[in-house]
Parts: sequence; structure tokens; C-alpha cells
Amino acid sequence: MTKPLNVGMIGYGFMGRAHSNAYCQVNHFFDVPFRPVLKAACARNVEKLKAFAETWGYESIETDWRKLVERRDIDLVDICVPNNLHAEIALAAAQAGKMILCEKPLAMNAAEGQKMVEAVEKAGVANMVWYNYRRVPAVSLAKRLIDEGRLGRIFHYRAQFLQDWTINPEVPQGGTALWRLDVHAAGSGVTGDLLAHCIDTAMWLNGPITQVCAMTETFVKQRQHALTGKIEPVGIDDACAFLARYANGSLGVFESTRYARGHKALYTFEINGEHASLAWNLHDLHRLAYFDHRDEGKLRGWRSIHVTDHGGEHPYMDKWWVPGLQIGYEHTFIHQLADFLTALGKGELAEPTFRTALQTQKVCDAVLESARTRQWVEVAY
Amino acid sequence: MTKPLNVGMIGYGFMGRAHSNAYCQVNHFFDVPFRPVLKAACARNVEKLKAFAETWGYESIETDWRKLVERRDIDLVDICVPNNLHAEIALAAAQAGKMILCEKPLAMNAAEGQKMVEAVEKAGVANMVWYNYRRVPAVSLAKRLIDEGRLGRIFHYRAQFLQDWTINPEVPQGGTALWRLDVHAAGSGVTGDLLAHCIDTAMWLNGPITQVCAMTETFVKQRQHALTGKIEPVGIDDACAFLARYANGSLGVFESTRYARGHKALYTFEINGEHASLAWNLHDLHRLAYFDHRDEGKLRGWRSIHVTDHGGEHPYMDKWWVPGLQIGYEHTFIHQLADFLTALGKGELAEPTFRTALQTQKVCDAVLESARTRQWVEVAY
Amino acid sequence: MTKPLNVGMIGYGFMGRAHSNAYCQVNHFFDVPFRPVLKAACARNVEKLKAFAETWGYESIETDWRKLVERRDIDLVDICVPNNLHAEIALAAAQAGKMILCEKPLAMNAAEGQKMVEAVEKAGVANMVWYNYRRVPAVSLAKRLIDEGRLGRIFHYRAQFLQDWTINPEVPQGGTALWRLDVHAAGSGVTGDLLAHCIDTAMWLNGPITQVCAMTETFVKQRQHALTGKIEPVGIDDACAFLARYANGSLGVFESTRYARGHKALYTFEINGEHASLAWNLHDLHRLAYFDHRDEGKLRGWRSIHVTDHGGEHPYMDKWWVPGLQIGYEHTFIHQLADFLTALGKGELAEPTFRTALQTQKVCDAVLESARTRQWVEVAY
Amino acid sequence: MTKPLNVGMIGYGFMGRAHSNAYCQVNHFFDVPFRPVLKAACARNVEKLKAFAETWGYESIETDWRKLVERRDIDLVDICVPNNLHAEIALAAAQAGKMILCEKPLAMNAAEGQKMVEAVEKAGVANMVWYNYRRVPAVSLAKRLIDEGRLGRIFHYRAQFLQDWTINPEVPQGGTALWRLDVHAAGSGVTGDLLAHCIDTAMWLNGPITQVCAMTETFVKQRQHALTGKIEPVGIDDACAFLARYANGSLGVFESTRYARGHKALYTFEINGEHASLAWNLHDLHRLAYFDHRDEGKLRGWRSIHVTDHGGEHPYMDKWWVPGLQIGYEHTFIHQLADFLTALGKGELAEPTFRTALQTQKVCDAVLESARTRQWVEVAY
Repeated sequence: MTKPLNVGMIGYGFMGRAHSNAYCQVNHFFDVPFRPVLKAACARNVEKLKAFAETWGYESIETDWRKLVERRDIDLVDICVPNNLHAEIALAAAQAGKMILCEKPLAMNAAEGQKMVEAVEKAGVANMVWYNYRRVPAVSLAKRLIDEGRLGRIFHYRAQFLQDWTINPEVPQGGTALWRLDVHAAGSGVTGDLLAHCIDTAMWLNGPITQVCAMTETFVKQRQHALTGKIEPVGIDDACAFLARYANGSLGVFESTRYARGHKALYTFEINGEHASLAWNLHDLHRLAYFDHRDEGKLRGWRSIHVTDHGGEHPYMDKWWVPGLQIGYEHTFIHQLADFLTALGKGELAEPTFRTALQTQKVCDAVLESARTRQWVEVAY
Repeated sequence: MTKPLNVGMIGYGFMGRAHSNAYCQVNHFFDVPFRPVLKAACARNVEKLKAFAETWGYESIETDWRKLVERRDIDLVDICVPNNLHAEIALAAAQAGKMILCEKPLAMNAAEGQKMVEAVEKAGVANMVWYNYRRVPAVSLAKRLIDEGRLGRIFHYRAQFLQDWTINPEVPQGGTALWRLDVHAAGSGVTGDLLAHCIDTAMWLNGPITQVCAMTETFVKQRQHALTGKIEPVGIDDACAFLARYANGSLGVFESTRYARGHKALYTFEINGEHASLAWNLHDLHRLAYFDHRDEGKLRGWRSIHVTDHGGEHPYMDKWWVPGLQIGYEHTFIHQLADFLTALGKGELAEPTFRTALQTQKVCDAVLESARTRQWVEVAY
Repeated sequence: MTKPLNVGMIGYGFMGRAHSNAYCQVNHFFDVPFRPVLKAACARNVEKLKAFAETWGYESIETDWRKLVERRDIDLVDICVPNNLHAEIALAAAQAGKMILCEKPLAMNAAEGQKMVEAVEKAGVANMVWYNYRRVPAVSLAKRLIDEGRLGRIFHYRAQFLQDWTINPEVPQGGTALWRLDVHAAGSGVTGDLLAHCIDTAMWLNGPITQVCAMTETFVKQRQHALTGKIEPVGIDDACAFLARYANGSLGVFESTRYARGHKALYTFEINGEHASLAWNLHDLHRLAYFDHRDEGKLRGWRSIHVTDHGGEHPYMDKWWVPGLQIGYEHTFIHQLADFLTALGKGELAEPTFRTALQTQKVCDAVLESARTRQWVEVAY
Repeated sequence: MTKPLNVGMIGYGFMGRAHSNAYCQVNHFFDVPFRPVLKAACARNVEKLKAFAETWGYESIETDWRKLVERRDIDLVDICVPNNLHAEIALAAAQAGKMILCEKPLAMNAAEGQKMVEAVEKAGVANMVWYNYRRVPAVSLAKRLIDEGRLGRIFHYRAQFLQDWTINPEVPQGGTALWRLDVHAAGSGVTGDLLAHCIDTAMWLNGPITQVCAMTETFVKQRQHALTGKIEPVGIDDACAFLARYANGSLGVFESTRYARGHKALYTFEINGEHASLAWNLHDLHRLAYFDHRDEGKLRGWRSIHVTDHGGEHPYMDKWWVPGLQIGYEHTFIHQLADFLTALGKGELAEPTFRTALQTQKVCDAVLESARTRQWVEVAY
């Protein structure tokens, strides 16, 4: 019944694995009109690439992404390489008429992102960016509640993304494993890597951010570069916090760092409305906290919703096990892929598209500019 | 406006302090028809007694409780001495026509308790036992919700009281500080000291317990006695767990120990009804957990009710500070005293009376008998 | 490198899916010497069976389990059918020389289980029972900590398994979906379905249970049978609680029910030792609570360990994503399968074997007998 | 042994009660060299004043604060009136040679505060500002841990103070109860009322704040004034968030609002250091969260320290009940008073003095200026 969809994967790192898993799992749990076929994997290190291809069942390998992009038997290109390569690959893939799924952030900056949007729209190819946290069932439930108008007028939206893995100054920068610390490969530090997630979710849930005022800091000023072996200046932001104003009149406070001891990947958000509030965090991603002022007075309290119910109550959960049994991180990619394939079957695009992701890029650019200029910056949509 | 009520306090330990505080504080926060006057404090150790009396403002001291009980200027006798002295003092106080507030448990056993009930009822004196946890606002709120029928048919009630302060075998038994470990002074171990609280609350919230089946254990078999200096067998139960059946058809599970590492005074209970469930614990006593199945499906979750609201929403809390600010342990005694004084003004008794506390004593007796005989035991009301 | 291992799956329900997922995923994440091949799936309903086989990629189907068991191309039989069929299938599969992976509980009772143990041991075939919760990383970590002696002498072990899905008396019994409510198919209610998990973990962590004293209750006395359409008496235990004594001198308290409103699948356990305590629950399965009295005094507290670290710190987690990102329920089966395949490569058996699972069955039998006789019962190992 | 210390209380509102309670309770629990005597209470509303004086046992009343300040029998003046009266009263009291305890914030602005500091220092009178949250035992413990150097280099300090009581636009401004909403009485909104607490604690724990960049918002633009009955513009900040830099190189993020549905008085802070992190919140004020990276790897986790231990482990707690039993909000004032009296006995001042509180005022001024100018502002110490 399902049609095959030939996937060409570029990159085999953390995201290469997470996406490959989604391709393998989606048909086990979701009734979608396409069946991903792992046609080819591409990377420069042949030995590692072969191991990766064997583990996941890719039928062939390529060491030059240009060849992969040009292969006739590839329908969809998945870009899982460092940020500085996104644009070039995407432009070529669009030109070759391939669908493109791109890891976040979309690009090194909005200018690059703008070209990517134009390319995919001109080529008319399906496209999506892997802002996977939208598809945590608890986060999708938050979206549903907000769309139903349950919160009323919104006053506040705040988010954090806290990690602690770069506190040790001996951690090097650059190379395959640590390109996120090399400004030339990553474009920025926590802003593009972590705050981009926060901003994507924030604007999805609460609408456009119009102004920002930011500060950034680089706590460890120089690190050995993994490729050159030399001690080099660190160009990324180790931490970034910013104030924001939304188009709907609400206030935003955002903070991200890799220097918050005790937090491995603590993405949190909270939204406060006139009638109700919602809060969530990635360390217990299967729970949504909800407070409704319209509850009877003496019984008001923050509800800890264990987002595992069936019967359509909780997004995506009918597809998994039984109520009460939690799923984890990797499932967000499966959900996003299922939505993509379902939309594809209808000739539609699943969100966030390149165009949507460009908005997030613009906020990131404004944040970095504000940190440099120490001024409030209007986001230039 | 308020009438003086002359208090004679017997004992100056932990409970002597907690009750004295209630006498000092009640008129600062509650509008009650009586004003406790700290007339006399009584104990055998004159030096410590004097210090206690000075700290709390007792006007006089007595070293013989019989004298205190006979004093004409004493209206109310508060019994804060080890359990083995409760009955004798209460009988004398009743005969002298004094109101009596007695620390829990009521007595060494139900037989003693029965005499005490008869004595106060014959004398017609006001009486109450300090099962203070009923007056934690969150627990009082639980009672209110149950009385309103919100839970529907009850299926389960479980409670624990977990401590860890006697794991060290070097802790001695007996004497002023550690009489709770001496079976001759305490009557039993955790059963009378801790489970008695659990049972009092349980029957207040869920009705009579009709049958029990228990096991007890004494992990440290002998300890030095603080008075004799000798190593003596330990006669108390270090731990006790029991199964129970209630008159309403629900099932009970109870457990208490002083060997649960990490729990200082963790009294917990949970009640599961057809429609809703409630849970509470003493380590965060200002919160009540509530789950209501009648909530809209996708929004069902355990609510953490911060029991600090005003406007009559949360029991007792209007009298304290502002919403969101928590109170603590000692306030339960102030609440119980306020209720006692209010009832007294109306010629009524506040719960739990000696008669009510006798029911708890009977369950405790049945529990200890069951542990001895390894049989289910019917509670003999 | 990996050798194929041909799997014959009997059953396609909840567990059929969970195990199939494990077969599909194990080689994506674990370096094991075998590669499961989904050779055949077996069930009576052809239509549903075909859909199941297509979803998971089973190469063929069988509608008679005897045929499946006899097929030469099947190396391993996985039994995922109602409890009343476990023994017969297992005996036949053993005789046919197949490895057997059997869903829990092992059998309807210890007598059946005994025959199954004898059969697999006589046949010399690899065997294992899917008590999957041992392989929750947090639970495996608990085991490691206990084995290292960190807790010291153990005083208490308590466990609960609370659900709420049968409160509605309109829920029918029997049939494909609800055979767990039909005593003829299930053997017992919560005892075999839920407490069996608690008992398996308990004895793995804390050694043999020697005596039990139980009570059971059936709150809804009759339900419509899904197959006959008639109102029939309910033969299972809706709730069961029991007291226990362990060979190591510690005390146990266990409780399970399907009438605890607000709990979907709340399996909890806590163990209290002389030096440290551990607690865990299935609703937040990626966390282990740990209290160590040897911590510096003012800093003692229950630690909430987010069991997602790498570098060998946390069992199994190196194989998944990055620190801080949680996994879920289904991963326990993947872990158990990985351990089975690794052991198989060494000619060993992974735990729990049929023999180990028989011990749990004996405790379940003793629990049910105790509930019937209202007596303490010694477990007959 | 204790010397009497005659107190003159100005104001009888929320803080008048909280401070009066501290005067009544301090000698019951703390061994301090002075015994507060409630000599006189002062306010304009005679009827309410009389009731207040009777409840708390004030020996006399005054309706003109100037008279109170001049009374020879008053040793100490406690200022519990709206912010716009602090300076005038404090100047007069200092001139009259009285000790002064002043509610926070110190003044309407730093200019006023500067005069108050000069006045008390010139007069040489004891002085203190009631930033009471320093004396929550968990917060005092945090200070102790930081002073011991356990956190190492500090990277981040963030704080929030979230309330939700002014969302309803029908809430009026001004008058006795709601002067906090009237800019003429309060000086500012959440900045002076709530963020002042956050800033005081922050600088106590983490040193001086050197720069800030803020945004404020007034969500409800006009409210009826309780005194005039007219709809008047709202002059206060309903919400305020700011970025900060500390002298020690760490980054700060602060946010306060009265529009965060579901939070009554949620003051939170978290500090992240190289080695360890600490977090606390007012809704569960008896707990301190602590994460120490130096813990053994597999056992690292956030510890929830129940700050109720004795033996000197946990600040102030030896004076209260037994381990495990929590205290509440009002105790912070008792602790602060005890520290003040102890210091007084040694001829010293307890913190925060007027001079210390002036620093907080300067940060508040900078925050408000930054919000007005949309610029980063250096704090002018």
C-alpha cells in the first residue's frame, strides 16, 4: 500500500542516527502513505560510513555529497552535517529536485537561510527543518491547548536551555565530534544550537518575537582545536540570555548556557495566560504542567499531566504502548517524519518548513546583533 | 472580651513546648472566646522546669503532678508525659473536675483508655487528644473533599510513617529523651508512636477499620538503658506493617518504621476513590495532591494544591499570612487549640475526644495482637 | 559478522509488538553476535495476523502454533499469548529443540512452571522470561549499587503496582483484548499480572521471600464476558496486598490494584538499608532516587539521578543518545534481548531464566493461597 | 537575664503582624540578650489600631508617628508603613536616637535611601532592613555553602518572583490594602516590591551587580483608585525582567511579575558554579536543591535537602522542633530578629543594614532607568 521513498542521508553523527532511526521505525507505528527506503548514506570517512551504513541498513554509500544529490534513485536528501554546509548542500539538492529535510538551525545566518528558502520554493520541493521538540507529545498538547484559547491573553513566555558539558576548559573545539564549539562550523554557540529550539517553539506557541535585547558570554576564551592541535580563540557564545517582546504584547525571557552545572539538556518553557499557565521540561519530557484558574478555588493546583493517554487524548500516544508507559527523545523524530509523510501524501508540507525556520534564524541573528551592539534590536522579518 | 482559661502543663519536653506555643499564639491569630493563661508547669527536674517556665512565661511551677491537678486556679490540665503516666493523671484530673488535653496515644492500651473515657465522661469535663495532624490545612482540606463525596466509593487507603533515627544501635533506650524506646514507658514502639497518627487520620477520613493482620520486627534486639546503664532487651516494635479492612469495604495498607534511611518524619497517606484520589505527606505538609477523573480527559493529572489560599478556600489559612506563604508543623497545635476553645465556648467538644481516641487505641491493640498471634484480628469496638 | 537468528513469534498483541520492536531495534544500537530475523508470526485471526506481519516485516505467517514450533527454519520461539497457553507451547517448543522466550508470568501456577523448567533444562535450550523491568537503566543501576554493598544491611523493601483501568464495571472480561480479566486465561488478576513484576524485581534486588500474608479483593463481582456475551462472575483478584519476610531478615510490603484512580501504570519500589536507600517508579522510569547517609550531614538529601549518563556510568545508556535525553518503556525489551543475545554468544543464559521465574511463580502461589486461607504461608521453594 | 527592649511599631498591616509575631516569639526559641517589650503601636485608624494592639499585647497606642518617635520609653522604632513614608520617619527616629528596623525596600529611591543611611550612621543608631528571605534556613544554608567555596567559580545566577494577584483589572489601586499598586505610595511595582528581595539575596550570595538591562510592562493601564474612587492611570510596573552582569564575571537573569497565573509567591533562585549548583524556591521554602559534580559519577543527581536537621547542620533549625518537621514563612522574621538582638548584645549590627540595603536600592533604580531608556545602565555605587 505504502510507496517507497528513497532516502539519501548526509552525515552519520548524533543526528544521522536519530533520523535513521525515524526512517526505520515510522512504518512500525504510524499509518503513513510512504515507506522510507535507506538508499544511500554519505560522509567523507569511509570506514565509519561503512559501519554506519551496515548498522542502519543503508543500501549504498557515497563519499561525495554532490554525487549523492545527483543520484536518480534518491528522492529525499537529509542534511545532518555541520551548519556551515547546510546552504550549499540544500541549494544543490533543490536544484536537483530532491525533497530536503535539514537539521536545525536552518543555516549559518538569515542571509544564507533566505537563499535556501528561495531555492526550495523555486524548485517546488518538499522541505522541512528538524525542530523536533514540537513533536514531544506534551509540547504538541500544549500547542493544542493554546490553539483552543484556554490560556486567554498571554502575558509571559520564558524558556531556558541549560547544559553543562563544556565547563572543563580541556574540552577541545572543532572536528567531527565537537564542531559545535567551532564558530566556523557552527556559526554561533548556544544561540544557534540551543536557543534556536527555544525560539522555534516559542513562536509556534506564542507568535512572532518582534524585539530582542541580549547578552552573551564566552567563559572559556581559548581551547585547543581538534583539527589543528593549536590553542585557538573560542568564537562561539558559551551563554546567551535575552529579553524579548512578542507581537501579541507578551514578554519573553530566554536563557541558554553550557555552564549550568547539573543540567545535561534541560530545555524548559513556561507560558502564563490570563486564565491558565503551562510548563514543560525536556528532562521529564512526558509530563506537561498545567494550571487553570477556572478550576474550583480550593482545588486549584498545578496538574502534572502524564502525557501517555490513548483515545486521542494525547498527541501521538495512541500509536505507542498503553497508558502510563512513557516514550523518550527519539520518538520526536519519528513523529515529525510521520507528519511529513502524511502531509506529503496530501501534497502538503509539514511544519516547520524552511520558510518557517527562517523566522527563527532571523531572531537568532537579532539576538547576536543585540549582544554585539548592546542595543535592543527589531527583528527584521 | 475573651475569658481567661488557666492552664496547668505537665511535662516540658518536645510536646510541652509545642503545646505551650499553641497557648501563646492562639489569640494572636484566632478569634476564640478564651484566652489561655499559663498558670503552672509541672515536672520533677526543678532546674529544667524553671528554665522551661521562664521561657514560656508560666506563672508558677509544681514538682508533683498531684498538686497541680488539685490546684483551684487550674482549669485545664495538659498531659505531656510518657504514655505510662497518662491514665493515672487523667483519672485524677477528671476527678478534680479539670478539663484535660492529653498527648497521643491516649493510653498504654485500650483497657487503660477505656477507664480514661469513663472518667472524663462521668466527670463531664472537656477532653481532647492531641492528634494534631488532622489540623494540617491540607489534611483538613482532604477531609472536607471526602465529606463532600467527591471521591465516590472508596477502594484503597494506605499510609506510612517512616523515620530513621534509631538505626544506630548505640542509641540508648529510656530516660527523659528516649522514653519512646522503652516499652515500659511507651507501651509499644512505632505502633503507638507513629501508626497511631496514621490510624487516627485514616478512620477520620475513611471510617472504622474492622480487621487487621500485622507483622512487627525489632531490628536492634538490645540497647543500653539510659537510666540503669545496663544493656537491656528492647521491648518495642522497631517496625510494624499491617493489612486492614474497613467497614466501607475498602482495603488498607499501613507501614511504619524507624529504620527507613532518608526519611526523618515521613508520614504519608493516599486514598483512592471511584472518581478521585488524594495524597499527602508530612515532609511537604502544605501541599495536597488531588486527581479527579472527572476532569476533561486530556487535562487529567495530579494537582499539587499549595494549600495557602484565603477567602475560605483553604482551612485555617485566612488566619495566617498571604496566599503562597506556607506555615509549618507547630501550627497544627494552634489550630487544634483554636477549635477546642471555639467548641468550648459553645459547650461542645472538639475532636478527637478521649472516646474517639479510644477507637484508635483499639486498632493499635488489635495490630499488636495480630503481630503476636500471626492471625487476622477483628477490632473489638 | 552477526549470525542470523530466526524468530517465530506467537501472538500479536501488546507484547507481540513490544518484542517485535526489540528484534528490529537491537542491532541498531547494540553490538551483539546475533541478528534476529523475523521469520514467522503466528496467531489464529488471519486478517489481523497479516497486518501485524506486514507492519513488522515477518516473512511468513502460521495460524497453528504447533506448525510454527515444528518449522525447521525457526531457531527461537517467542510466546506472547495468554498465560493459559504458555505451558503447552513451551513444552512443545522445548521438545522441538527451540530456544524459548516467554512472556511473564511464566505459567498459570508453579506446578505448570515446574514442568516448563524441567522441559527446557532437559532439552538444553536457551530460555528466558520477559521480566523486562530489570532492564530499565535506573533499575539496573539500583541492582549495581546494591551489589556493591552500598546500602548495608537491608531493613525494608516495599513495592506497589497501581492502575485504574477497570474501575468502570462496564469493562467486559475475556477475549483478545481483555483476557487479563478472565481468570481462565490469566490464572489470577493483579497478582500474576502486576505483582509478579514486583516480586521478580524484589527477589533480584533483595533475595528470597520466605513468608507471605496476603489479602485480595474483587471489587466488581461480575462482568460481561466478551466471548459469551453473558454476565459472568469475575474470578480474578482486582487488588492484592501482602506482607512478606525475606531470607535476609528484612520486611516487605506489597500492594497492587487496578482501582487506584490517577495511576495508569505506577510500579514503584523502595529499599531501605543501614547506610542508604533507593526508590524508583515507572511513571518517571529514567530517574533513580538515592539517599546516602554517609553524605556530609548538612548536604544529605534524596538525589534524583537522571539516569542518562554515558561513559559507563549508567547501564545501557552509552548505546542511546546523549546525556540528558531520556529513553522510554520499549527500550527495556531491547536491553533484555541484547543481554540474551550476548549471553547466547558465550553459551550462557541471561536472567531471568525459566528456573528463576519459577521462584516468582511460587511466591505468587503462596500469596494467593494466603489470601484464601487468611494465614501466613511459607514459600515452598 | 535578658534586658527589656521597648518596641514602637508603626503600621499594623501584613508586615506589622509579621514583625509583632517575631517580637512575641523570639524569646521562646532563641537565647538572646534582649527581651522585646511591645510598648506602643501607631497608626491613624484608631479603631483598627486598638484591635491590633489588643491582639498583640501592645501596651499603648499612638495615632501620630512623630509622638511615638519622641517617646522616651521607646528604644526601637519599627517602620511598617508604605514606602513613601520610610524616609521621613527614619530621619526623625534617627534624630531621636532610636534604633530603627525598616521594612523593605529601604526607600522610594536611592536618593532617599542615601539620606537615611547618613542619618542612622550619623546618629549611631542600630539599624536593619527586613529582607527576611536571607533567614530562610535553606537560604542561609546556601550562603554557608557558597562561603565555603563549594561552588567554585560562578557562571550564572538567576531569580524570579512570580505572583498572579493583579490579573483581574477590577482590582483597585491605592488605600490601606492596595497601596502597593499606587506608584505614589510604592515608588514602583514589582521592582521595589519583589525584585528588591531577589536583588538583596543575589548580591548577598553572589556579590555586586554592576550592569543591568531591563524591560518593564504595565498590562493593566488604568485602575480605580481606592481612595478617590476615580479611574486613574497605573504608574507601577506590573512586570519587570532584566539581564545583569556581576562583578565576579557571572551572568544574571531576573524576572518578576504579578501576572504569572498559578504562582502565588514563587520566589526562586538558582546559582551555577564550576563544581556545584544550588536552587531554592519559596513555595517549598524548607528544601534546598543541591547538585555536586564532584559526587561519584553514576550517583550524581540533584539532592533535595529537607533543611530540618539538628546538631548544627541546618541554620536555625536546632531551635525549633525535631528533624523532619518543617517551619514556615513567619519564622524568617524571628530568625532575623534573633540575629539582630544577638548582634546588639555585642555592639554590632546584623545584616542587612541600611547601608547594605541602599545597594539594592541602587540596583532597583538602575533597573527602572534602564527600562525607561532602553539602554544598559551601570549601577552607581
